[in-house]
Amino acid sequence: MSAPTRRERDPLGIVEVPADALYGAQTARAVANFPISGLRPDPAFIDAVVRIKRAAASVHRGTGRLDAARADAIIAAADAVLGGAHRDQFVVDVFQAGAGTSLNMNVNEVLATLATRALGDAVHPNDHVNMAQSTNDVIPTAIRLATLDRLRPALAAVDALAATLRQRAVEFDGLVKAGRTHLQDAMPIRLGQEVAGWAGSLERGARRVREAADYLLDLGIGGTAVGTGVNAEPVYAERMVVELTRLTDFPLREGADRVQLMQSMGDVAAVSAAWRVLALDLGKIASDLRLLASGPRTGLDELRLPAVQPGSSIMPGKVNPSIPEMVNQVVFQVVGHDATVSAAAEQGQLELNVMMPVIGHNVLSAIRILGNAAAVLDERTVRGMQANSTMLSYWVERSAALATALAPRIGYAEAAALTKRSVESGESIRTLVLREGLLTPEEADRLLDLARMTEPGVPGQDA
Amino acid sequence: MSAPTRRERDPLGIVEVPADALYGAQTARAVANFPISGLRPDPAFIDAVVRIKRAAASVHRGTGRLDAARADAIIAAADAVLGGAHRDQFVVDVFQAGAGTSLNMNVNEVLATLATRALGDAVHPNDHVNMAQSTNDVIPTAIRLATLDRLRPALAAVDALAATLRQRAVEFDGLVKAGRTHLQDAMPIRLGQEVAGWAGSLERGARRVREAADYLLDLGIGGTAVGTGVNAEPVYAERMVVELTRLTDFPLREGADRVQLMQSMGDVAAVSAAWRVLALDLGKIASDLRLLASGPRTGLDELRLPAVQPGSSIMPGKVNPSIPEMVNQVVFQVVGHDATVSAAAEQGQLELNVMMPVIGHNVLSAIRILGNAAAVLDERTVRGMQANSTMLSYWVERSAALATALAPRIGYAEAAALTKRSVESGESIRTLVLREGLLTPEEADRLLDLARMTEPGVPGQDA
Amino acid sequence: MSAPTRRERDPLGIVEVPADALYGAQTARAVANFPISGLRPDPAFIDAVVRIKRAAASVHRGTGRLDAARADAIIAAADAVLGGAHRDQFVVDVFQAGAGTSLNMNVNEVLATLATRALGDAVHPNDHVNMAQSTNDVIPTAIRLATLDRLRPALAAVDALAATLRQRAVEFDGLVKAGRTHLQDAMPIRLGQEVAGWAGSLERGARRVREAADYLLDLGIGGTAVGTGVNAEPVYAERMVVELTRLTDFPLREGADRVQLMQSMGDVAAVSAAWRVLALDLGKIASDLRLLASGPRTGLDELRLPAVQPGSSIMPGKVNPSIPEMVNQVVFQVVGHDATVSAAAEQGQLELNVMMPVIGHNVLSAIRILGNAAAVLDERTVRGMQANSTMLSYWVERSAALATALAPRIGYAEAAALTKRSVESGESIRTLVLREGLLTPEEADRLLDLARMTEPGVPGQDA
Amino acid sequence: MSAPTRRERDPLGIVEVPADALYGAQTARAVANFPISGLRPDPAFIDAVVRIKRAAASVHRGTGRLDAARADAIIAAADAVLGGAHRDQFVVDVFQAGAGTSLNMNVNEVLATLATRALGDAVHPNDHVNMAQSTNDVIPTAIRLATLDRLRPALAAVDALAATLRQRAVEFDGLVKAGRTHLQDAMPIRLGQEVAGWAGSLERGARRVREAADYLLDLGIGGTAVGTGVNAEPVYAERMVVELTRLTDFPLREGADRVQLMQSMGDVAAVSAAWRVLALDLGKIASDLRLLASGPRTGLDELRLPAVQPGSSIMPGKVNPSIPEMVNQVVFQVVGHDATVSAAAEQGQLELNVMMPVIGHNVLSAIRILGNAAAVLDERTVRGMQANSTMLSYWVERSAALATALAPRIGYAEAAALTKRSVESGESIRTLVLREGLLTPEEADRLLDLARMTEPGVPGQDA
Repeated sequence: MSAPTRRERDPLGIVEVPADALYGAQTARAVANFPISGLRPDPAFIDAVVRIKRAAASVHRGTGRLDAARADAIIAAADAVLGGAHRDQFVVDVFQAGAGTSLNMNVNEVLATLATRALGDAVHPNDHVNMAQSTNDVIPTAIRLATLDRLRPALAAVDALAATLRQRAVEFDGLVKAGRTHLQDAMPIRLGQEVAGWAGSLERGARRVREAADYLLDLGIGGTAVGTGVNAEPVYAERMVVELTRLTDFPLREGADRVQLMQSMGDVAAVSAAWRVLALDLGKIASDLRLLASGPRTGLDELRLPAVQPGSSIMPGKVNPSIPEMVNQVVFQVVGHDATVSAAAEQGQLELNVMMPVIGHNVLSAIRILGNAAAVLDERTVRGMQANSTMLSYWVERSAALATALAPRIGYAEAAALTKRSVESGESIRTLVLREGLLTPEEADRLLDLARMTEPGVPGQDA
Repeated sequence: MSAPTRRERDPLGIVEVPADALYGAQTARAVANFPISGLRPDPAFIDAVVRIKRAAASVHRGTGRLDAARADAIIAAADAVLGGAHRDQFVVDVFQAGAGTSLNMNVNEVLATLATRALGDAVHPNDHVNMAQSTNDVIPTAIRLATLDRLRPALAAVDALAATLRQRAVEFDGLVKAGRTHLQDAMPIRLGQEVAGWAGSLERGARRVREAADYLLDLGIGGTAVGTGVNAEPVYAERMVVELTRLTDFPLREGADRVQLMQSMGDVAAVSAAWRVLALDLGKIASDLRLLASGPRTGLDELRLPAVQPGSSIMPGKVNPSIPEMVNQVVFQVVGHDATVSAAAEQGQLELNVMMPVIGHNVLSAIRILGNAAAVLDERTVRGMQANSTMLSYWVERSAALATALAPRIGYAEAAALTKRSVESGESIRTLVLREGLLTPEEADRLLDLARMTEPGVPGQDA
Repeated sequence: MSAPTRRERDPLGIVEVPADALYGAQTARAVANFPISGLRPDPAFIDAVVRIKRAAASVHRGTGRLDAARADAIIAAADAVLGGAHRDQFVVDVFQAGAGTSLNMNVNEVLATLATRALGDAVHPNDHVNMAQSTNDVIPTAIRLATLDRLRPALAAVDALAATLRQRAVEFDGLVKAGRTHLQDAMPIRLGQEVAGWAGSLERGARRVREAADYLLDLGIGGTAVGTGVNAEPVYAERMVVELTRLTDFPLREGADRVQLMQSMGDVAAVSAAWRVLALDLGKIASDLRLLASGPRTGLDELRLPAVQPGSSIMPGKVNPSIPEMVNQVVFQVVGHDATVSAAAEQGQLELNVMMPVIGHNVLSAIRILGNAAAVLDERTVRGMQANSTMLSYWVERSAALATALAPRIGYAEAAALTKRSVESGESIRTLVLREGLLTPEEADRLLDLARMTEPGVPGQDA
Repeated sequence: MSAPTRRERDPLGIVEVPADALYGAQTARAVANFPISGLRPDPAFIDAVVRIKRAAASVHRGTGRLDAARADAIIAAADAVLGGAHRDQFVVDVFQAGAGTSLNMNVNEVLATLATRALGDAVHPNDHVNMAQSTNDVIPTAIRLATLDRLRPALAAVDALAATLRQRAVEFDGLVKAGRTHLQDAMPIRLGQEVAGWAGSLERGARRVREAADYLLDLGIGGTAVGTGVNAEPVYAERMVVELTRLTDFPLREGADRVQLMQSMGDVAAVSAAWRVLALDLGKIASDLRLLASGPRTGLDELRLPAVQPGSSIMPGKVNPSIPEMVNQVVFQVVGHDATVSAAAEQGQLELNVMMPVIGHNVLSAIRILGNAAAVLDERTVRGMQANSTMLSYWVERSAALATALAPRIGYAEAAALTKRSVESGESIRTLVLREGLLTPEEADRLLDLARMTEPGVPGQDA
């Protein structure tokens, strides 16, 4: 027995709509047309479309194009949705009609129904809620607003992670350790330097994302069907930007060329790309954490990560770097999201890029999951991780690379030979040079001063 | 006020678990550790893990390693879940501990709880449900089973679409139309030939996917922690394959090298890659549909697609090719999913690839959404689309490429000049050659026989 | 009979080197080790490494660490190479030792040989040419310098293309045409607006690339082996930046954190990503050109592109949009280059990312080929393309979307019905409304004023 | 002073051609039109086009469509080129006219010139060399033949590498080592098992490539301009396949649907994709080699790779895993090549995919460089690498995972506690259980039999 329905009409004819649905015919068609993923648009995306509807009602009220009663009813309906009500009424799949007509109409219909109920007089989804709008300017504008919206907490999480890393770097600054390049013995470095480098990479990446996001502030709303603004009053675009600025608290700008802003998804693709680059650096950090925490008995064991869950269903006592592993997976997901955005962004045709729904879905998901991953990495791994000073010292003192510091004194060739003897015998460079009488203990102390080697300067020379 | 909880203990200590949850401590930890996407594992993935648990209980019952009571209780619990019960208890995020420990433990815990309740005696998630198993052999095996499971309906949808195209190709076989290469006038072709070509591309692609999927039948189950099979009896692996074959109806095989099957995600990456190639061809078809249906008044208008929903919120009467547009978007999503799978599959380290959860999520999603998209394209577009014979004839008769057919008679250079005159004057090739007296009407009929041009043969020569 | 060789020694033993080669043992080993692609490093990459060598010699001369004679000889050798000499001596494959040791040593050896020959006294590749340097700070610095170097002409080409588009947009500003969204009839737009939108997208994209490139100005030179600066004097890094600024004319900066700059390839990945986004917009433009120039007899034929070569080996008179097609291919190559850069940039491990050679190769190739493609598109397509005003008018007057302009007057539903009648009968909206008496000729002129529809305003209302 | 030129005419007018060039007007135009990358088509691609020309001349000689004198002259010219002559005459850039018209015409012109010179009578590039052909069937057929050609040595290199790995696996089969999952201590495994797993992954991958390559044997030659075969005699296609089979020694087949084979680049994209999957597994192997060879003093040091070149320009004695690092870079290049192929393959439009040149370039490059990389890895790394049995034993005996073997005896919880004590105290599991009296020495020997743990079986139970 199926749920009760009501019958609605749209330009294509009669449609059955669930009896209690706030949405109408076109949404019902979209639900039937797109049983693809079961995923619904990101709440931030819905919010953005609703805000545009609210702003338009307000602007039209001001110009008198829409009567005050209807405008107020639409505004009240929008506020209810923005306040969290009726969220189950946004039912279209993320894979839907090109350009996002289905999402736009879903919002138009829900707000029209709510407004009509409140007003006791008909508010029409197209004629009133969508007045002076087109999917073609609403959806790209909404993607911009939603992306900015999602970036706020996500960038805050990245900033917080970078700040924690900075703080841990200070704590770890006294710990000299073996540097490794090519995973091979290299000159000493301080753990604090390594960790500060991670923070710096995130900071640069976040700065780039903010620069890319600045372009999103240019809105094409008011372009209507093809970017030219037909069917919108000349004052409409400017007033919409003012109104949306008020509603979102972003310093939005009226786009200089609404045709361009409708043609191109470049601004969104650029945010996706910058976000991916940030993700790559975060992935590098997660991989480093996994390497440094390898072991505990058969690996480097330089860092001990907080245990967050038992690591193995079969090996008792095993603790895995589960959080960094999750981060790496999220990074690869972000890479995939960006690949989709990139492919779709290239597909603009003439006045429009109809791949917008898939672009919006992917950029918003990418931002959300990486932001969440950064927050978890911060709270559950970086804050609590401990340096294992025993192993840090163990490795650095063994390092065959220390012979480098002797090269200015004993020559590159002899230093190379010394390295070879150390690897063969298993004795440390210090032990060898003392036993072989190559250096006096005082010379060895001076030339093999590990901490000095972590700053600019030629070993053995005065700074 | 938060929900009531109970306290559970695992190797890391005490955890609060929702009082009514069937899962236990480790799942609760995973929920806390991974608030990333809100997405839960694909039901097919869960089913696959549950089937492995069921099979293991059955095998251990046979060898006597597990007592019959516990084994039967686990089997009954698994059957309940496979029958659709308790699905809300699988609560871990798709982005989780590397290798999928969280999903494995979620299933272990739910089945242990159900079995314990039924039995009145303790069934332990690790000691009993997970007996002789490791996340490291359970999860890769489950990805294989789930992928096979998802492919069945998805490939059936592709097959059905190809069959519909074949049928439409027969219907359209008499319609000669302008060929277009580089989007420029080219020699005539029959609409049936174009559409049959689409079908053929899908058929080849589906065949490739089936070939790639064959490798998934090799199971590494029984490899346990590192692929060597430690902690599993020698007979275990073989019996598991027998049991899983029975449960799934796939012709599964015991993998020849369980270490290899644990090291590498190549078999899964290969299915993802083959699926993507199929998607690319489907994308080409969707793009062609959009081109051929362009207009109706300012484009080619050779095909009329069934209207599935109004096309514009602002332009009355507009009908867009919404289904093919959705298909193109799904194709780009599949491309992104494959990019993620590819990046993750490369990240194996020594005995294991810990990126398995993100690999599983992406390959399963790719299969599911493209299968659904193919089904919708079949049912809502291809079955109902109509050829517009008026426009098909209009274009082909205008085509400047028809001069090619005269080249053997009047020479390449004169044919090129004729083409040029046709483009400049707007007259058709036929009109020109008759008006200019280059051919008699009989010659024109013979040389410009459009249907003859759609089969091998030199125009004007006997076949 | 093979070419004559000489024998050279390096830390691993004896190597045969071509008798007349300026390079030495390590380069010869690299040639033997890496017979992979046959591709050699981009000349800009070699230049950048040579400039670093020249700058280091100059700095060491100033500090006295290197004697003036050797320093001057190295400088003279570097100048000779920068002037174009001995370019055939840089023979290592682009796929080579991680981090680019082979390229660094190739340059060290060639300069050492040249300096030794000039000086009559030994200049050593490591001890003198490479003094205070490591592959690990030389190569990332060189990638930055080479990328900046390649971007200069490439961005200039993009700027020039955008400028030409702006100029053509002015010329085309009076031409009203059919807008098309979803490739379906949409409201009118002016050809000038379309073309100006293309220009705007390129301008935004180029601005983003410049923002991303700004990060490249931060140099990690002086970090030496692991970023800490060991074996370089404290003044070295700062002086190197001064010297390199002089040599390159870029406003280079001493990096604040040389460890970070060695750990991360994020800055380079970000330029690659921003360049790709620019490419995506260029790809959209090329695709639009191909669509608008489709036909000439079986397509839109709104633009006529200059014929650059015969289009078909079999169809006489065929002219294809060969230049835009080449551009689309270059765009996809850039997408692939960026995918490689992205994957490689994620692979940093601890102090270094050893994937630098492949990163450098791909980012430099991407910049070079897209810059060249933009220049060719500018000169051979955009400058000479002609609008076909006959077809522009033909299509826009047919467009079924014109009914939209009547919706405020006759209502959305009646407008939709009118659209439908137009599509069915093949009559234009204007013809229909006049014949059916829906509007007077004066009303029709006013409401269907096509030029008015290309600017903001509600048709039929005063602006 | 520029080089002397001669003037040639083509359908677009007069062109200056280098006086001594064998090619003609259209090639000269292409050189001027496409100054993009400086890269010329892969020799295998040129060979394939030449073979098609040779085959066509032979077929037309047989049917009498082409006179014997001209046919023989074309055949002789083709044989000269295939023998290695005149290779500098193939001068078009890889980024060129869509569909590869420029390459096709370059070959047509060179062969026509050579044939004309030999014959003393005019052989025309289009009328004779290109007879019954179109770029649209020549180039896709040539990509298939060239890909098959390149795959032969590349797959042989992969096979050889796998065979070497198999042999090394036998040598290493007695060496028990620490297994590592998540880079964390896991159960023991034999080095031979690890290495055999690598071999197995390559074998599976190579088998998949061969399956994908089988589709390339279906040729669309004879489809001419749009796949229908117009302007080719009905017998032509079949005879061409016979002739090409003879020339190439591949078991070629006449394609069942030449329209499909022209529409779709799916078969080529599938080879690219399968090749990429093989590359991913090879990348995993290279990464493992780098991990296992890490150190020598600050890493795992389980494998010693042959030193192929000094590792550092600053650190004496450093030896890096340069060959595996190169392999990883090649893998990422292959990933990028495949991304380009994928994006381009999706861009088919109606009868043709004009992105063929970029597809051909990328698939051929990918095959070539990975084949070369596999050969180098085989010869310079895998054959000579040495197991370090000291460190293999050192690590496995330390491994905290050995407690797993005691779980069946002492319980999972006590085993977990034991693991914890081992990590904290630094004592091995064996030492601990003996010192704590948990096991007798005999029991310890039996339960902690490392070799037994590398095969199926429950430790302490009879097999």
